[in-house]
Amino acid sequence: MSDRVRVAVDAMGGDHAPGEIVKGAVDAVLTRTDIEVILVGMEDRVKEELSKYTYPQDQVRVVHASEVIATEEPPVMAIRKKKDSSIVVAMNLVKRKEADAFVSAGSSGAILVGGQLIIGRIKGIERPPLAPLIPTEKGVSLLIDCGANVDARSSHLVQFAKMGSIYMENVVKVKNPKVAIVNIGAEEEKGNALVKETFPLLKGCPDIHFIGSIEARDIPSGYADVIVCEAFVGNVILKLYEGIGSTFKRMLKKGLMSTAISKIGAVLVKPSVTQTLKAFDVSEYGGAPLLGLNGLVVKTHGSAKANEVKNSVIQCVAFKEQQINEKIKQNIIVEE
Amino acid sequence: MSDRVRVAVDAMGGDHAPGEIVKGAVDAVLTRTDIEVILVGMEDRVKEELSKYTYPQDQVRVVHASEVIATEEPPVMAIRKKKDSSIVVAMNLVKRKEADAFVSAGSSGAILVGGQLIIGRIKGIERPPLAPLIPTEKGVSLLIDCGANVDARSSHLVQFAKMGSIYMENVVKVKNPKVAIVNIGAEEEKGNALVKETFPLLKGCPDIHFIGSIEARDIPSGYADVIVCEAFVGNVILKLYEGIGSTFKRMLKKGLMSTAISKIGAVLVKPSVTQTLKAFDVSEYGGAPLLGLNGLVVKTHGSAKANEVKNSVIQCVAFKEQQINEKIKQNIIVEE
Repeated sequence: MSDRVRVAVDAMGGDHAPGEIVKGAVDAVLTRTDIEVILVGMEDRVKEELSKYTYPQDQVRVVHASEVIATEEPPVMAIRKKKDSSIVVAMNLVKRKEADAFVSAGSSGAILVGGQLIIGRIKGIERPPLAPLIPTEKGVSLLIDCGANVDARSSHLVQFAKMGSIYMENVVKVKNPKVAIVNIGAEEEKGNALVKETFPLLKGCPDIHFIGSIEARDIPSGYADVIVCEAFVGNVILKLYEGIGSTFKRMLKKGLMSTAISKIGAVLVKPSVTQTLKAFDVSEYGGAPLLGLNGLVVKTHGSAKANEVKNSVIQCVAFKEQQINEKIKQNIIVEE
Repeated sequence: MSDRVRVAVDAMGGDHAPGEIVKGAVDAVLTRTDIEVILVGMEDRVKEELSKYTYPQDQVRVVHASEVIATEEPPVMAIRKKKDSSIVVAMNLVKRKEADAFVSAGSSGAILVGGQLIIGRIKGIERPPLAPLIPTEKGVSLLIDCGANVDARSSHLVQFAKMGSIYMENVVKVKNPKVAIVNIGAEEEKGNALVKETFPLLKGCPDIHFIGSIEARDIPSGYADVIVCEAFVGNVILKLYEGIGSTFKRMLKKGLMSTAISKIGAVLVKPSVTQTLKAFDVSEYGGAPLLGLNGLVVKTHGSAKANEVKNSVIQCVAFKEQQINEKIKQNIIVEE
């Protein structure tokens, strides 16, 4: 029992809460015996959903939280005022070491703020980055940082590079992951003030495999495993990925339905086209870890359904087993 | 004759120079009688290419330039040292009003630097932005700025918004174009320091149709006509568009060829899929104007072939006819 990874799940967060969230949590414990899920939210509603399923009783618990933080609420205020919200209650479980990890499809802002204010940063970590996996031609790359804390400093980016390397190496199992910094040209002298300042610092890091600049056009081909950038740029990259993907899908469908001959062909190519589109769908890749906190926080898409919730919960196991936080503490040399 | 728009073309710039460049220039004068092309470059090589075609002799001239600026040369140095390069010679033609516009597929850096140093900015314009058209579901949007001058100030972005509006309204013929600023959330209080400072300034502009923030995911759907951003972010957007497009194309082709049934279907869907992919190909949309200079400079892709060169040359006609620079001078109120 004590060997199980205890994952607090925000039963009230996201567009499909609590139904899909509870279903995803149940699916996770049905898949793995080494997980205990703690569903945090309005007890009666969560139990009503739970009653639809059969599952090992000792792997699921419910912790009541009477409030819900809405996506549009100002994060700092929400975290401070709503002490009995599912996010605050769940984060306190992580803080008190009663849970190893927290998964939520709720307000990104509240999760980022709560992570810092309640769970707290690992000593020496200046800023916890949000680091989603994005699909590429070769598999996935880690895009670090896509969080809400913009206008980063070079020392933050160096820590992002180190934490990202540890995550890709140990959780995603990419050996000696290639680290690159997002830039507007391949040459070292290119870039804005932040990139120019950060480049030599990354070049001088002995514990990462820094390969230099990456232009945005080379991101989808999988040129680097860890893509380091400031959060504003990371957010643009992540959301443009989503936007181009869904626009493309709509246009392609429209194109395939445009002529009678094409419609017949569409039936024949459907399985392979669907697979290709799926491989490039950001939402297929589960949650984004918020790295550098005293406990794991995973943010899944607001639109997450059961499958994504399940994958996000399972993802927490590798994180704990690989002792990512211990590795972060050991490897990130802090100048104090 | 004097009514013709005189377009200087860099015969030596780009991956396919001089062959495709000369071909594109000839195609332009064969399409329109109101254009005179001035091919600038090594006379013997340009004339050798010209000898392959039949065209109205009074619409094409050659001006000799003995040097070529390579893409990898440091721009400022190249512009200062290579006085007889095709870029410098052509820009001097624009400066002396012997040409109305300049089209080049050569070094972006040299073109941006030369534009400012040789042709010069319109009085009051703080920074000339590079503004390509990018494909969207509804047509095209103007992405301004994608240039080499990063770390912009809010006053620059306000000028970009105004110049972009004038261009979209008069050259691309979008009535009352919607202007949005790239941001990481829809709310006014979101963003980095630059966006937060710029947002209220744009909101207070009486002469543009400002619709607020645009998240990167809404760019491909055509939510705004003029997309305002700082050059680093603009460069990331433009190049990610290119990168996702070409990766997608490769993956889709691979997917279509993966099974026997899919291969048969592929033959049937090919015309409609090709059309869809083409609509989302950035290189289909010709050159990007460098706005705010005392003359028009259009940068086409380094990989431009004849068709793109032709379109870029023709694009200069609307720019001159619509008196874009006069409109920029009248509409952009300068605080001095």
